[in-house]
Amino acid sequence: MAKLVFVRHGESQWNALNQFTGWVDVDLSEKGTEEAKTAGHKIKEAGIALDVAYTSVLKRAIKTCHYILEESDQLWVPEYKSWRLNERHYGALQGLNKKETADKYGADQVQLWRRSYDTLPPLLAEDDPESAVNDRRYQHLDRRVIPGGENLKVTLERAIPYWDDFIAPSLIDGKNVLVAAHGNSLRALTKHLENISDDDIMGVEIPTGQPIVYELDEQLNIISKSTL
Amino acid sequence: MAKLVFVRHGESQWNALNQFTGWVDVDLSEKGTEEAKTAGHKIKEAGIALDVAYTSVLKRAIKTCHYILEESDQLWVPEYKSWRLNERHYGALQGLNKKETADKYGADQVQLWRRSYDTLPPLLAEDDPESAVNDRRYQHLDRRVIPGGENLKVTLERAIPYWDDFIAPSLIDGKNVLVAAHGNSLRALTKHLENISDDDIMGVEIPTGQPIVYELDEQLNIISKSTL
Repeated sequence: MAKLVFVRHGESQWNALNQFTGWVDVDLSEKGTEEAKTAGHKIKEAGIALDVAYTSVLKRAIKTCHYILEESDQLWVPEYKSWRLNERHYGALQGLNKKETADKYGADQVQLWRRSYDTLPPLLAEDDPESAVNDRRYQHLDRRVIPGGENLKVTLERAIPYWDDFIAPSLIDGKNVLVAAHGNSLRALTKHLENISDDDIMGVEIPTGQPIVYELDEQLNIISKSTL
Repeated sequence: MAKLVFVRHGESQWNALNQFTGWVDVDLSEKGTEEAKTAGHKIKEAGIALDVAYTSVLKRAIKTCHYILEESDQLWVPEYKSWRLNERHYGALQGLNKKETADKYGADQVQLWRRSYDTLPPLLAEDDPESAVNDRRYQHLDRRVIPGGENLKVTLERAIPYWDDFIAPSLIDGKNVLVAAHGNSLRALTKHLENISDDDIMGVEIPTGQPIVYELDEQLNIISKSTL
């Protein structure tokens, strides 16, 4: 039996400012740092001996991962970073204040962008200086996979190959796995793991900084689920 | 042409206490933390765009690696940890104060343990509770490779396979590589890279927290070497 621990990063500096963040590489706030350390203490108290950690290429998740591993005395655990665990790309909305966006486009439209499974946000053009194609961390990717904006459906479609190729094999091997990631990439993995419908998944909230611990059998059936 | 950056971790809590450390997983001191951050600033100022980072499984090197990547705005860079980059194992001397050890065994004996290329320190028995065989991070290793104590020669023999299999191939691919490690594992890599004799290597000091930057051609010949 393997343990799978999901942790959504704590508050970022833009969460605090109520801005759409997506792939923008915003740091944790002081509160977010404390949330990550507390998550590490909880994992230590629960006696969870991790074997491997997966995170995104965004510092708010990476630092959450590091704080958790350090506070639980297992900083030596192998750690792998992938763009496939990134937050949903919020397209041209990235950097905008959520309240101002609602004033401009209407609350209903913003609600649709935020809560619909398959509605895309306004896309960021590839020649926009803010486009991820200009970011060195994505330079080895085929440009066609670098999004200009994503809904949860697209986020799931690019996250699940990472689950299938890296996370699931570790769990099937009996390893205890940490995934330190984002609201929507974790929502995607949760949908896949718990077989949640397209309609229901948007109502599922992943709490920040709270380790969600699954015990899984070798076929990845859920034996138990708890929040620390 | 590839860049190779060596950084020896900054001061640890036991450096400050003048104790033999070796494989004991001692944290950075406050001074050591500042040294690591300064190394990161220097790498940023030098405009070194890293592609991959290698470190040991000891937190003083791992944290040095993390501070460097964070302060140089490239925390997303892939990072790999290996016991083969660990500090030299100091055997039964680990945890002892260097001054007290000299009082007990004589300054000449201690000097020999510290400065001879191939003299082993007193070994830690496998059934000693302090033995690395009891440490979860080494559980996947064949017990026969877990040392009870090492000289620089043995440290080099277990570090070079990692150079050959991971670090050198990255450099040959033209990647810019960070190695955040320890006085003696870096001394071993330096000996190998610069073809330094057994006699001369013990006189080579790797400064703490100071990035040493090599430019290498595709055959790993040294084009230039500088300290930031």
